[in-house]
Amino acid sequence: MSEKTEEYYRTAVSLSSFYGGKIQVVPKVPIRSLDDFSIWYTPGVAGVSNAIAKDPDKSFELTSRWNMIAIITNGTRVLGLGNIGPEAALPVMEGKAMIFKYLGGVDAFPLVVRAKTKEELADVAERVSPAFGGINLEDIAQPDCFYLLDRLRETLDIPVWHDDQLGTAAATLAGLVNALKVVGKRLSDVKIVMLGAGAANIAGARLLIAAGADPKKIILIDSKGTLHPEREDMDKLQLVHPWKYELALKTNGERVAGGLDEAIVGADVLIAASTPGPGVVRKEHVRRMSDNAIVFAEANPVPEIWPWEAKEAGARVVATGRSDFPNQINNSLVFPAVFRGTLDVRAKKIVDEMVIEAALELARFAEERGISEDYIIPTMEEWEVYPRVATAVALKAIELGLARLKLSRDEIRERAYRMIKKSRDTLDVLVRNNLINPIPVK
Amino acid sequence: MSEKTEEYYRTAVSLSSFYGGKIQVVPKVPIRSLDDFSIWYTPGVAGVSNAIAKDPDKSFELTSRWNMIAIITNGTRVLGLGNIGPEAALPVMEGKAMIFKYLGGVDAFPLVVRAKTKEELADVAERVSPAFGGINLEDIAQPDCFYLLDRLRETLDIPVWHDDQLGTAAATLAGLVNALKVVGKRLSDVKIVMLGAGAANIAGARLLIAAGADPKKIILIDSKGTLHPEREDMDKLQLVHPWKYELALKTNGERVAGGLDEAIVGADVLIAASTPGPGVVRKEHVRRMSDNAIVFAEANPVPEIWPWEAKEAGARVVATGRSDFPNQINNSLVFPAVFRGTLDVRAKKIVDEMVIEAALELARFAEERGISEDYIIPTMEEWEVYPRVATAVALKAIELGLARLKLSRDEIRERAYRMIKKSRDTLDVLVRNNLINPIPVK
Repeated sequence: MSEKTEEYYRTAVSLSSFYGGKIQVVPKVPIRSLDDFSIWYTPGVAGVSNAIAKDPDKSFELTSRWNMIAIITNGTRVLGLGNIGPEAALPVMEGKAMIFKYLGGVDAFPLVVRAKTKEELADVAERVSPAFGGINLEDIAQPDCFYLLDRLRETLDIPVWHDDQLGTAAATLAGLVNALKVVGKRLSDVKIVMLGAGAANIAGARLLIAAGADPKKIILIDSKGTLHPEREDMDKLQLVHPWKYELALKTNGERVAGGLDEAIVGADVLIAASTPGPGVVRKEHVRRMSDNAIVFAEANPVPEIWPWEAKEAGARVVATGRSDFPNQINNSLVFPAVFRGTLDVRAKKIVDEMVIEAALELARFAEERGISEDYIIPTMEEWEVYPRVATAVALKAIELGLARLKLSRDEIRERAYRMIKKSRDTLDVLVRNNLINPIPVK
Repeated sequence: MSEKTEEYYRTAVSLSSFYGGKIQVVPKVPIRSLDDFSIWYTPGVAGVSNAIAKDPDKSFELTSRWNMIAIITNGTRVLGLGNIGPEAALPVMEGKAMIFKYLGGVDAFPLVVRAKTKEELADVAERVSPAFGGINLEDIAQPDCFYLLDRLRETLDIPVWHDDQLGTAAATLAGLVNALKVVGKRLSDVKIVMLGAGAANIAGARLLIAAGADPKKIILIDSKGTLHPEREDMDKLQLVHPWKYELALKTNGERVAGGLDEAIVGADVLIAASTPGPGVVRKEHVRRMSDNAIVFAEANPVPEIWPWEAKEAGARVVATGRSDFPNQINNSLVFPAVFRGTLDVRAKKIVDEMVIEAALELARFAEERGISEDYIIPTMEEWEVYPRVATAVALKAIELGLARLKLSRDEIRERAYRMIKKSRDTLDVLVRNNLINPIPVK
């Protein structure tokens, strides 16, 4: 671990203790005097309950539910730390909740769950769903995470998202769309090698295919090598990991066996979402790719190959997961905006078309500012991107008939903008009034 | 329903729609720039997760958990509205969350749960418990509510509370202690009739006995009449309602059969927590009580007997659940303070001794101000009562060895005071800065 990372660890522990965590629950209605409890609580609240009892969908109008999501995890795959359990996952989920509010104006509650099986976790999510307008699954080991997303998308009529799948996949697609423009290639033509077959790349492959990539030209590689229909563990995969199995059937038209060494030959695109580098991908791999190669090395904290190495080996566009290099493939660009948009039109689902729309709008936003080898995707600092993506997602939900509320483009954008601005202003005002203490000087 | 209540209903519905619910999730740490995400989220947060993975109790120091409780309901007995389900229960739980924050500085999250059985609800509460420092059960039909409180108190090492039981019981005990002082009688001597054998009076009877009342001199009355060991439904009670069964064995030493007409003769105290009146308790009942009778008529929105009727019939001290009469038996005096105290010392349980201590401190607070027939219990406006009761409860938890943190009386009081003040100031500042809109003029 680098000294800088260790320093971040120490600072985070000491400040987490100083502040006693990162989030709080705050009223969003005035209390002029205790008499107002007669409106917000008994007897008035009974009128609100009656209205919802008659029509449960009114809970999206008359309670905070419309803007409240659960961040749900069992803590089985937290960051790069593995299965550390629900308590240890809590600070991560709190951090995510903070980002949801700050970047998306979304109220998000970190609900860490002690669950032994995927069914238990799914049960809890379903049972608490009346409290929420959406669910963000997080840091759940595969293949359980695929089961959960599929099941909850099916059983619930609120948007369900697994950020390690969809957030990363959408950011990757956004970056790839623009990288391909920079190098003058088309998604439907290119050969794409995906190193690592975890949540990100499995969802990524599905999304790339849905967005127009040719499945025959995609090769996925897991720890045992390339996926293809003749792999000896196919029977087992069908049983324990049907999602990977399905991709093994559908991709790798040439049935390339072996590993990265074999698969990378002539590839136009490498999307690595595997284990931290450097040296997981080597220069000679990049050299075997076609001209104008695109390399996404998304592992954190250290990419599979350093960007300068990839460039030296001939890659034209390189992206990583890090903010200190150009082209950060960052799901924080995606999830706050996607939920902002879906919540604002009370969408019943987030379907793949909406995820693709988010990616394409992200790409368009960068393109309008002028894309280049070093700018294929917006950064978090460009915060106008959030209302833009939110609006695109919301309009797609309306188009697909998934929205409970039908609003115009201007209405949606204005609402999204206002919600995000308000949440930033709220934090500013609390800091300025010393209701949030300044960070102590060491 | 009175015109005034209908007006409250209409206002509550219209304002709930205007504000889109009552609570939000807000960061409580500064974000100076997006670089601070490196502390609050990756990479820094991994250091916090590591620390908690090594010692899960650190989650009470390094996350918001220490001040975060769940308000859990299945919506089976919401206010006087009955089994209206989780969605319709949500506005009530949001209101409660608002009160927890405003009066107690406690972060409370409304977790409405779709659960068919009491076991399912208990499972959800246990599974989500790593996210919370305490659990407040609410509006759950009996006898399930007794099962839930007992089970969760047993299985969890965070404080568990059922407000319809413990909150009401504690407020009643506080009022009764002072009412007895006013009339010059002793708890261990008096004959107490309890009309209604729901959550409030069953928990109330248990608490009164634990506080020193003579069980033989207590008579509980349910819809079938007085409880006593020879009631013909005792076998069934033992099976379906062991809590009531146990009280039937223990109370009513004279085995008075019949109903209120029979039981009330010579009673010193009547505690009615049954069905809304007026006329559920009649003047002739009060007339049959002993001299200096005490009548608590706690049904809402209309007490079992109007206070002036009870007075005319000879009652010396009368209390109700309403804020527009003297002596409001109000659990809002209790729950914010009890949780403030238990959370501040990271107590593992709320046991009956702590509940009794809360009641006695409430009573002492009023006594210091000078009790009388019209002032036996503080009002919510006297907000210094909250840090006082919080401190008493916290010290009792320390004394009983249930606290993870051992603090002095002054430290506890100062913390409680500061937390409550901060939450009020937070709301004020948001209103002053138009981040919470003023209530619109009709």
